[in-house]
Amino acid sequence: MAKLRILIIGGGGVGTMAAYALQTGGHADVTIVLRSNFAAVERDGFTIDSIQHGHDIKNWRPHRIVQSIPNATPEAPFDYILVATKNVPDVKPTVVDLISPALTRTHTSILLLQNGLNIERPLQAAFPTNPILSAVSLIGATETHPGIVRHDDTDDCKVGPFPLPGGNTPPAAWQADARRLVQAYNACGRVGWTLDLDVKATRWRKLLYNSSFNSVAAVTGLDTARMRMSEFVVDELVLPVMREVKAVARAAGVELGEGVEERVVRVDPTDTAFVPSMGQDAAKGNLMEVEVIVGEPVREARRLGVPVPTLETVYAMLKAVQLKAKESRGLWTAEFAEGAKYS
Amino acid sequence: MAKLRILIIGGGGVGTMAAYALQTGGHADVTIVLRSNFAAVERDGFTIDSIQHGHDIKNWRPHRIVQSIPNATPEAPFDYILVATKNVPDVKPTVVDLISPALTRTHTSILLLQNGLNIERPLQAAFPTNPILSAVSLIGATETHPGIVRHDDTDDCKVGPFPLPGGNTPPAAWQADARRLVQAYNACGRVGWTLDLDVKATRWRKLLYNSSFNSVAAVTGLDTARMRMSEFVVDELVLPVMREVKAVARAAGVELGEGVEERVVRVDPTDTAFVPSMGQDAAKGNLMEVEVIVGEPVREARRLGVPVPTLETVYAMLKAVQLKAKESRGLWTAEFAEGAKYS
Repeated sequence: MAKLRILIIGGGGVGTMAAYALQTGGHADVTIVLRSNFAAVERDGFTIDSIQHGHDIKNWRPHRIVQSIPNATPEAPFDYILVATKNVPDVKPTVVDLISPALTRTHTSILLLQNGLNIERPLQAAFPTNPILSAVSLIGATETHPGIVRHDDTDDCKVGPFPLPGGNTPPAAWQADARRLVQAYNACGRVGWTLDLDVKATRWRKLLYNSSFNSVAAVTGLDTARMRMSEFVVDELVLPVMREVKAVARAAGVELGEGVEERVVRVDPTDTAFVPSMGQDAAKGNLMEVEVIVGEPVREARRLGVPVPTLETVYAMLKAVQLKAKESRGLWTAEFAEGAKYS
Repeated sequence: MAKLRILIIGGGGVGTMAAYALQTGGHADVTIVLRSNFAAVERDGFTIDSIQHGHDIKNWRPHRIVQSIPNATPEAPFDYILVATKNVPDVKPTVVDLISPALTRTHTSILLLQNGLNIERPLQAAFPTNPILSAVSLIGATETHPGIVRHDDTDDCKVGPFPLPGGNTPPAAWQADARRLVQAYNACGRVGWTLDLDVKATRWRKLLYNSSFNSVAAVTGLDTARMRMSEFVVDELVLPVMREVKAVARAAGVELGEGVEERVVRVDPTDTAFVPSMGQDAAKGNLMEVEVIVGEPVREARRLGVPVPTLETVYAMLKAVQLKAKESRGLWTAEFAEGAKYS
């Protein structure tokens, strides 16, 4: 069998560990697109400390390292594009913008290795003949310095085709695409991604954690251990958000089950001060995945007529924090002049 | 007429300007209790740049400057104690703790020159025979450095007796106490405090601004001009909070009137980036007046059965931010161990 040609966009912790598993499995040749860490990785390769692949991986490179999105070529189209960037649709370039040049219509499968709800929709609209796959990852992997990755929690990921708009079953061929990728991923023998034919439910389940803990961390600066110690943060913010998201999921046809919130509350350990990604982004003044993690559940709730008062307030707070990040990047300008509705 | 003996606790912008007006009016001798700025003021006096009293006031001192709360003496009891500190009842010492040593039962009138709701209640419980007066101030006055005060917005303040618990009219003698203080204050001829016999309503009206703009500034870090430019911050946070507080006020017997929210939204200028006090406190990691500005309206809403979903969420967020300020002061300890409800 010919090796799969795989393009990975995003060389942070998640993208790098995917590149490592796929490339070392021997069934794929990985091209990885790097931005801020390109120079470091070109010079020294990746340095990886992994609980599954080994603690002393040095000077490692996949098949090819590039600095910008490569153009698709008819003779060697990419079989898969794995998108492992942050998903911030309120800022250009969007995921559709990013992958367009590298994609071959009807051929390339797109795997979204990203958080959030309804992230497949713009891709299904833009590329209706390409399989769109979803990966819900629970890996713990962080790029601590450019090119240096610490992988400290199991690479546990569920992969399946996104349902088509309207909730229909995806074509059987798309399941095969997902299965083929999972096999190539697991070929290294050290990790176990799994095929998931109900990835929509899996995504809602992960959203319980992200929409609550991530949001509260971003607005308050607290880690999840302190949130739990305080008790009121869990009782008055985390659990109310989870219950609202669960109600939206139910209205969207996904039953997350009795007591799931209480289990999700206890996901993180209480012996370390872990700050979820959106909290880390907020602390650094970085852009956050507000729209896919909170905005989409809110819009879904409005569409379905489910009241989500806590989530609505959290969403507005996060957009306000995001506004500062946008302003510092020149993406929003404060006009100290008359003219606006409230000037 | 003998001069009034007045103790002012708190020598920030508000307390200093009160000391200046009362002392220079000639009808009062002011003792002021200073903490962080005691050494600077003892050495150089206050330096004041005031839009009403003069721009070049140097080396000014009231009758007496002290470093700790003085004890009451039978021969010269304080006629008034003006409390101009921040009001943070979730942290010791409380206002009751502070003023106890200096107060003479049945004699001293207590004036709370502070923000927030229900701040009189612990005082009425602790000192049932002392008149408790309320001052709702709109002054703009800031201590920019120790002992250096910029007074840049009119000293506009309404003073009246707090209604007794249960909403009864305060004794007529307490109105006279309020009037006498206002007269002493205005005797300098440069400022105009006014007597307010419906100070409860005035306090709710000021709460509209504080519970909304102050809270949103504390949680998001935005100034009020940017909140208004963004529009969504006003539409989705500021106005919803104001509408909820207005509904609680109505249930508490105070009708704030048609369109008051839209007027309060426009109180601050849009040509400068003004961050309300609680936002400044949050940015500096200081303790905030969360309980009197947001906690009390929430508890009032619960008592009266008024739903305040936005305010409830904002309150929980602020308590979480406050928790960090408490932890940094050793007032809360994160126990990375088992035992708590969510460990």
